[in-house]
Amino acid sequence: MQVTSLLARSTSLRSSNNPSSDRVSLPSFSGLRSNSSVSSSFKPTRVSAGAGLPHRVRSAVRASAVETLDKTTDVSLIEKSVNAIRFLAIDAVEKANSGHPGLPMGCAPMGHILYDEVMRYNPKNPKWFNRDRFVLSAGHGCMLQYALLHLAGYDSVKEEDLKEFRQWGSKTPGHPENFETPGIEVTTGPLGQGIANAVGLALAEKHLAARFNKPDNEIIDHYTYAILGDGCQMEGVANEACSLAGHWGLGKLIAFYDDNHISIDGDTEIAFTESVEKRFEALGWHVIWVKNGNTGYDDIRAAIKEAKAVKDKPTLIKVTTTIGYGSPNKANSYSVHGSALGANEVDATRKNLGWPHEPFHVPEDIKKHWSRHIPEGATLEGQWNAKFAEYEKKYKEDAAQLKSIITGELPAGWEKALPTYTPESPADATRNLSQQNLNALAQVLPGLLGGSADLASSNMTLLKMFGNFQKDTPEERNVRFGVREHGMGAICNGIALHSPGLIPYCATFFVFTDYMRGAIRLSALSEAGVIYVMTHDSIGLGEDGPTHQPIEHLASFRAMPNILMLRPADGNETAGSYKVAVLNRKRPSILALSRQKLPQLPGTSIEGVEKGGYTISDNSSGNKPDVILIGTGSELEIAAKAAADLRKEGKAVRVVSLVSWELFDEQSDAYKESVLPAAVSARVSIEAGTTFGWEKIIGSKGKAIGIDRFGASAPAGRLYKEFGLTKEAVIAAAKEVSSW
Amino acid sequence: MQVTSLLARSTSLRSSNNPSSDRVSLPSFSGLRSNSSVSSSFKPTRVSAGAGLPHRVRSAVRASAVETLDKTTDVSLIEKSVNAIRFLAIDAVEKANSGHPGLPMGCAPMGHILYDEVMRYNPKNPKWFNRDRFVLSAGHGCMLQYALLHLAGYDSVKEEDLKEFRQWGSKTPGHPENFETPGIEVTTGPLGQGIANAVGLALAEKHLAARFNKPDNEIIDHYTYAILGDGCQMEGVANEACSLAGHWGLGKLIAFYDDNHISIDGDTEIAFTESVEKRFEALGWHVIWVKNGNTGYDDIRAAIKEAKAVKDKPTLIKVTTTIGYGSPNKANSYSVHGSALGANEVDATRKNLGWPHEPFHVPEDIKKHWSRHIPEGATLEGQWNAKFAEYEKKYKEDAAQLKSIITGELPAGWEKALPTYTPESPADATRNLSQQNLNALAQVLPGLLGGSADLASSNMTLLKMFGNFQKDTPEERNVRFGVREHGMGAICNGIALHSPGLIPYCATFFVFTDYMRGAIRLSALSEAGVIYVMTHDSIGLGEDGPTHQPIEHLASFRAMPNILMLRPADGNETAGSYKVAVLNRKRPSILALSRQKLPQLPGTSIEGVEKGGYTISDNSSGNKPDVILIGTGSELEIAAKAAADLRKEGKAVRVVSLVSWELFDEQSDAYKESVLPAAVSARVSIEAGTTFGWEKIIGSKGKAIGIDRFGASAPAGRLYKEFGLTKEAVIAAAKEVSSW
Repeated sequence: MQVTSLLARSTSLRSSNNPSSDRVSLPSFSGLRSNSSVSSSFKPTRVSAGAGLPHRVRSAVRASAVETLDKTTDVSLIEKSVNAIRFLAIDAVEKANSGHPGLPMGCAPMGHILYDEVMRYNPKNPKWFNRDRFVLSAGHGCMLQYALLHLAGYDSVKEEDLKEFRQWGSKTPGHPENFETPGIEVTTGPLGQGIANAVGLALAEKHLAARFNKPDNEIIDHYTYAILGDGCQMEGVANEACSLAGHWGLGKLIAFYDDNHISIDGDTEIAFTESVEKRFEALGWHVIWVKNGNTGYDDIRAAIKEAKAVKDKPTLIKVTTTIGYGSPNKANSYSVHGSALGANEVDATRKNLGWPHEPFHVPEDIKKHWSRHIPEGATLEGQWNAKFAEYEKKYKEDAAQLKSIITGELPAGWEKALPTYTPESPADATRNLSQQNLNALAQVLPGLLGGSADLASSNMTLLKMFGNFQKDTPEERNVRFGVREHGMGAICNGIALHSPGLIPYCATFFVFTDYMRGAIRLSALSEAGVIYVMTHDSIGLGEDGPTHQPIEHLASFRAMPNILMLRPADGNETAGSYKVAVLNRKRPSILALSRQKLPQLPGTSIEGVEKGGYTISDNSSGNKPDVILIGTGSELEIAAKAAADLRKEGKAVRVVSLVSWELFDEQSDAYKESVLPAAVSARVSIEAGTTFGWEKIIGSKGKAIGIDRFGASAPAGRLYKEFGLTKEAVIAAAKEVSSW
Repeated sequence: MQVTSLLARSTSLRSSNNPSSDRVSLPSFSGLRSNSSVSSSFKPTRVSAGAGLPHRVRSAVRASAVETLDKTTDVSLIEKSVNAIRFLAIDAVEKANSGHPGLPMGCAPMGHILYDEVMRYNPKNPKWFNRDRFVLSAGHGCMLQYALLHLAGYDSVKEEDLKEFRQWGSKTPGHPENFETPGIEVTTGPLGQGIANAVGLALAEKHLAARFNKPDNEIIDHYTYAILGDGCQMEGVANEACSLAGHWGLGKLIAFYDDNHISIDGDTEIAFTESVEKRFEALGWHVIWVKNGNTGYDDIRAAIKEAKAVKDKPTLIKVTTTIGYGSPNKANSYSVHGSALGANEVDATRKNLGWPHEPFHVPEDIKKHWSRHIPEGATLEGQWNAKFAEYEKKYKEDAAQLKSIITGELPAGWEKALPTYTPESPADATRNLSQQNLNALAQVLPGLLGGSADLASSNMTLLKMFGNFQKDTPEERNVRFGVREHGMGAICNGIALHSPGLIPYCATFFVFTDYMRGAIRLSALSEAGVIYVMTHDSIGLGEDGPTHQPIEHLASFRAMPNILMLRPADGNETAGSYKVAVLNRKRPSILALSRQKLPQLPGTSIEGVEKGGYTISDNSSGNKPDVILIGTGSELEIAAKAAADLRKEGKAVRVVSLVSWELFDEQSDAYKESVLPAAVSARVSIEAGTTFGWEKIIGSKGKAIGIDRFGASAPAGRLYKEFGLTKEAVIAAAKEVSSW
């Protein structure tokens, strides 16, 4: 049977125990010199992986280390530290009987070098602004990062936290979560997101450095590192983001590609035979191949050195490793990817790697070795603080702006910049009103930057006073994402999580949130306050037809936790939506905006939007209207017109704008009762989208007017009529539910 | 201001009127020989694009045509036909005052060659099985395809249809829609989808050919062509699918990359500077560059010839064109991409291209030239039918299988293969029960094939009696998609729309539908009956944590039109879900399946699932239970247990399984009343997902037990307790709503 044979082949194809892999091979210093597959040089036999390696490798590495690098740490100590990382991962996964030991075991060497030798951070202040950022894009390998944070002295991951890996309420959840574990920059696990976040982090650094650094004071200066696996490499979102990273020339982005040839289904040969190196070269990256990632410490160091020297391109360091390195019977197989090794194999691995210690034990010499990071981190931050003090003295205005970005404290009175409108203001599409808001806010919010997925002139997202963020003009604030919605969202997550005061916005047609939903959900989960500017929000876009017309999208985001779905009806509501979006720095917002012109309605207000739902007009008394008409966005106008007609007939009609269900839900019961009194069951809603979910608002006796099928291609006016989104329909429904 | 200057630059950068572009350059016959950008050779001046071109080009092309190809059609006639295509597009967009003239004007030459010289089809039977498939991945340029279908003699696009472009009820909607317009293979518009669909179409051809062709009768033999633009190239989904196409060696997939350097935001330089050619070479494609796509007919022909000669790789033909070719003032600018030219510019373009005809007029000689496709198509199909008759005589069994695939008629009695279960059958995860169903069905459904996005061993999707569909074993039916969810979905759409009897399934964790939602929505819209096998469907997956735990997903798909969201509770319901999914060939199905073990419940049935919602147990009489407990999937067990306890207390309790809301909605009012009587407002629902939408089922007085926050990382049992998804909670809620 082919299935079995392929899997069998995958486990026998490559063995790190082949003598050739024991040697420390030199990295190629100017990109890839060979395209031949590593696996071809391995013999198809397989003995205990890594057996006997430490000793033989030790001397070889020591020799070359002296030649190429200034690190003088004893290699045996490094080996020991690397094994400490491996066993913390093995032990935690074993105790939880759940998790992914394979990646930490294979990537421990590069992890060690990064956290022990290369990265600048302060364990006691994980949020120190100028820290190097690290993203484990292959998030399932999170025990690698937990082990490193633990060794480095972060308070978030103590020994007891490691023992609580993947348990309820622990600081060490199943995938890295920035909102749970200080020291984790972004939330990863869904593959491809992390590397795209890393592009956003590196973009933020490049942008801020270009804006704020001075010839005598380079106050912003850090690297962004990432580790990604084969899975990340296959995901389209990663290609999108990496294409942009190359385009932007993000020289301080250094990504390690854990090339272990194993994915869950077996050898990557079964589905992934492209040349990753060539693809990245095509994307404008510098590419280096470290052939022995298992023990080639100096190769890894040299590669990082080379990557840093290349300043105009991001670098991909392909590091060939053995998944589950050290496990005699499971290394280099899919079985070590996502399951505990099992007691017997843990024992065998302990013997194989010469690790006599109890589970979770970190030997004293290793502890001592790592302990320097606490004072060193404090020194780094102290020096930087002094540098910032000088900066502040000399460059007051810049420092104030930068401080706002670093702390997230919004400049006092910023909200006064929001435009306001009266019913006499000209009718306009909310996408245009959105642009007025963005341009007004960009003048008062130093951290506002963003752009569109190649629809700037449709989404109306250009900041007119700024140019384009590009390779050679990184100080500018219009980001051109190209037609890459998913990458755009994930990059914005990285920007938002770089600094509390960075407020990224991004835009496309509302229907194409379908392309970027993976990133939007991570905004919500990871508390990244991205502003999603989503125009063409209904069949009102007209002729482009059903592929471009959202139907289920409002409902689908109302159902998503920790996100604000806002659908403003006019200028004041658009301004209110921006106010809410800017204030919610730990909750992303989606603004659904119209392509078509809408009138400025009497009764709308910024304050109303802040409450999510509110009455815009009412001729009833005693909180007892005959009927309540509820609309959102472009349909609020229809509700208002129907109300006017009904009032002429002598009816007591309230019109409610339900611009954000989430915000309305958060109001007091008394307030909610004042808007939607329980006693009034005669309710009609109108919204150019699915009626799914509206029962919650209109109750069992109400009537929801909406669209429960796909749209169609025709001029907008015709579509509204054909789909029954009319004043007449609202009036008829009002009469029906009121039994007039 | 940088923004403006970049746009200005984009319109002046490249001009097709530069003398160098008038020459017919030879294509490079063995891939790319030069990586230098086309634009660099253009002078930064700009006169009327295409002015005076036809005459000069004519002779040059004629000369080389004789040398390289056997087509002898007069070049002047070809020019005229190409201009007829251009003006049909121009005129239709002008009349609608909406649409995208730029692409049809630039791609008319390759379009002409494909439909007039290369492709095999029968205009009078657009569904002829062995036709070449064509996909306009850059779907906004649909007037190109409508014009071609019109000229070729398809009944779906007559002159009056062209005049109704983008109008209500027309056959010529704003983007190509297979369900509206015979002759359109798949629905495109959302960028990147079409090329991924094309990969699916080519996969289907390769698979069927390998399975059914005989040395003496190659009954399946067609090409798949696609045109994609810069936008498609930027989308991650395209890279995912193209990586697979390269891996699978889909030699009969030939994609034209309309390299016009313009996207909506201006010159592609602002966001897209990667080397597409190098990337495709990295993905394992053969790459050819046609430098003059505007008039280089022979170059295009030669490239197609070369592409066909390369049998082990798909081919990308990069065709450098001028967007809006022929428009003196708008060619080569973003302004011609998505708006009507305007009356003046239409006139100018008529003059420029020497087109004196009225709008929508096709000159008689062009009509006559194209008229041969009707008899030729009839002959092609007739010959093939004769071939099939021979095949049927000689290879009866194969012919019967193939016929089922061609017609979509399911083999009689197929549903008897579905496994059934009793309450005594062992408890099992529905993902495992799903695999039992898939393996049973694969034996009776010749068109069932599919796989997982690198989670086959978690999704339980392997067909045990088959091997892997791979480059050298394309007859097999396990497809290995790698970690490419979006590409997987879009490829499956292509497979489903290749033949009515092909039933593709694809799998990942339910939460990662977020990555592929763009493709899933197109399954629903384009009536592609893909079966989405989505396992790990709730917090029940446990330790992987909130990044992997669906919350809002059930609701988000219940809100989507024309899709079945099924959440079976046990073996019988899993079998029922498969029965429904297989029968719904024009409506995709999503099966949400558990990671965790579930008992076989008394009262569940295949017939129940077919009704969407049904009573699994009830001790009430007169359709008046004291309370109705409603559950889906893994929580139905909890509802059943709560009911057992409540009945012990003397309560009359009905338990309802609401496995598919859509199917339940479609039942008669009488049936619905028999399950959920209006008089019984005491209702409690339990589902491990958002409560959003449940008000529809439980009414204003009911209580929904669910999860309205993100999940967490912990063992599943702990999570159920912490989130209150317990028997005790159901009992308490039942007492609350019943006022006991």
